[in-house]
Amino acid sequence: MPPSPQQPVGIFDSGIGGLTVLDAIRQILPHEDYIYLGDTARVPYGNRTPQTIIRYATSCARQLVARNVKTIVIACNTASAHAIDALRQTFDIPVLGVITPASQLATHTTHSGHIGVIGTRATIQSHSYERAIQTINPNTHVHSLPCPLFVPLVEEGWANSQVAQLVVQQYMEQLFNNTYEHADLIDTLILGCTHYPVLKPLIHDVLTSMHKHVALCDSGTATANQLKQQLFTSHLLNPQTSTGNANYLVTDDPELFTAIGKSFMKSPPDTATHIDIS
Amino acid sequence: MPPSPQQPVGIFDSGIGGLTVLDAIRQILPHEDYIYLGDTARVPYGNRTPQTIIRYATSCARQLVARNVKTIVIACNTASAHAIDALRQTFDIPVLGVITPASQLATHTTHSGHIGVIGTRATIQSHSYERAIQTINPNTHVHSLPCPLFVPLVEEGWANSQVAQLVVQQYMEQLFNNTYEHADLIDTLILGCTHYPVLKPLIHDVLTSMHKHVALCDSGTATANQLKQQLFTSHLLNPQTSTGNANYLVTDDPELFTAIGKSFMKSPPDTATHIDIS
Repeated sequence: MPPSPQQPVGIFDSGIGGLTVLDAIRQILPHEDYIYLGDTARVPYGNRTPQTIIRYATSCARQLVARNVKTIVIACNTASAHAIDALRQTFDIPVLGVITPASQLATHTTHSGHIGVIGTRATIQSHSYERAIQTINPNTHVHSLPCPLFVPLVEEGWANSQVAQLVVQQYMEQLFNNTYEHADLIDTLILGCTHYPVLKPLIHDVLTSMHKHVALCDSGTATANQLKQQLFTSHLLNPQTSTGNANYLVTDDPELFTAIGKSFMKSPPDTATHIDIS
Repeated sequence: MPPSPQQPVGIFDSGIGGLTVLDAIRQILPHEDYIYLGDTARVPYGNRTPQTIIRYATSCARQLVARNVKTIVIACNTASAHAIDALRQTFDIPVLGVITPASQLATHTTHSGHIGVIGTRATIQSHSYERAIQTINPNTHVHSLPCPLFVPLVEEGWANSQVAQLVVQQYMEQLFNNTYEHADLIDTLILGCTHYPVLKPLIHDVLTSMHKHVALCDSGTATANQLKQQLFTSHLLNPQTSTGNANYLVTDDPELFTAIGKSFMKSPPDTATHIDIS
């Protein structure tokens, strides 16, 4: 049976960060229904082998397909990097990741040809953004920096604290002061981790105080725009009469998920349902 | 063949934190030789299932036994909590963990009967210290707090920064100001993560500035004392004429290990050897 516009959009992440992607998508597509799956029992995927990441991502996608989604968004950098091809081969509905949309947006945005990428240590070490960007435009220079304190800062709910301010400042100085690589030319910065949009206003303020005029690309907004385009092209946009619901599934403690989730979205999840997929 | 005093002591951790345990042990037993194995490719163990943790820990211990160690120290909270019994059943040399020694030390140290425990989210959620302490003395009150920012702070080499000062202050206020549970009575604090001894001087200073007189128990020193006792009792102490060497094995990038390792020890590793145990 061909998919219908009324079916929900499926989104999964290794944990909670993908909520920022869902948030960005809901702002652009408020009339869609969503099923979000956070594989919180197995988070983070970053230190797993590619085989394991594919296995985990496939099991997440299978849960969503069983719930009749019309399309899948991988709202996780690690799973996007390693599992998108496998999911596209396994399932016959469209699968969208976060790395390509953000890389395309950044490549189209930069004037200087110098793009910064910040992410977890695992994402930076995987060189996923670097590869994606240089596939789009081989003349682009990519400057990467892992920012391991950002995820726990966000998860502690400290995104507006003095600590966060200092940490952001420290990392931004580290990123832009690498004069050897002409990092001072960076005019576009990819927030290459789904947690980082929570820190976006602070990153913006810190860069402004450093007199840096830098466009911030978060993968959520970039992915949302591609999803809208994809649903429009395939005549699968839900009619504007629909109110748009979101349901949340997690593989670990639902209460911890909703508690931490408060920092991640304008309308955070009130409840989540535990499912076992191990 | 019975073990001989000249054989090395084997120590393993899921990653790099166990270096603080090795550091504490070397200060108390400077004439022993050591083989340290950091399973850096599979760190952290905290979010694995107990079965997986046992499998990983067994494979680490097997590597050490193959290198002829006379005893094994599990310098990892997660592996100590879940795998110590399995290792004791599998191998016929003594196996020491970090949780029981630290819990015994804290239970003997406290006067108020109120012990604080800080650690990673996984360690705190496992209630390992709580169980160990209440097995020793069921009348003890345990106050636990996960401090997820401490590990990345230490790994970034920021332990002496203003950021670290603010973060330590924030967590200590959270821990001691839980008036409902009489947390103000805490007089002994277990540093329940092998990374935390790097922050010990700062934690001490912050507590002093809060007018708190609190004994800090790190598992390294507690475990070192028990190891010395164990080797002495079984006549396996290396003679004092030995100079005491340490060799380092890792399952991921040796250079990242030695770079980050600088924050963890008075005499940090210069080199490490990569081994594959997956």
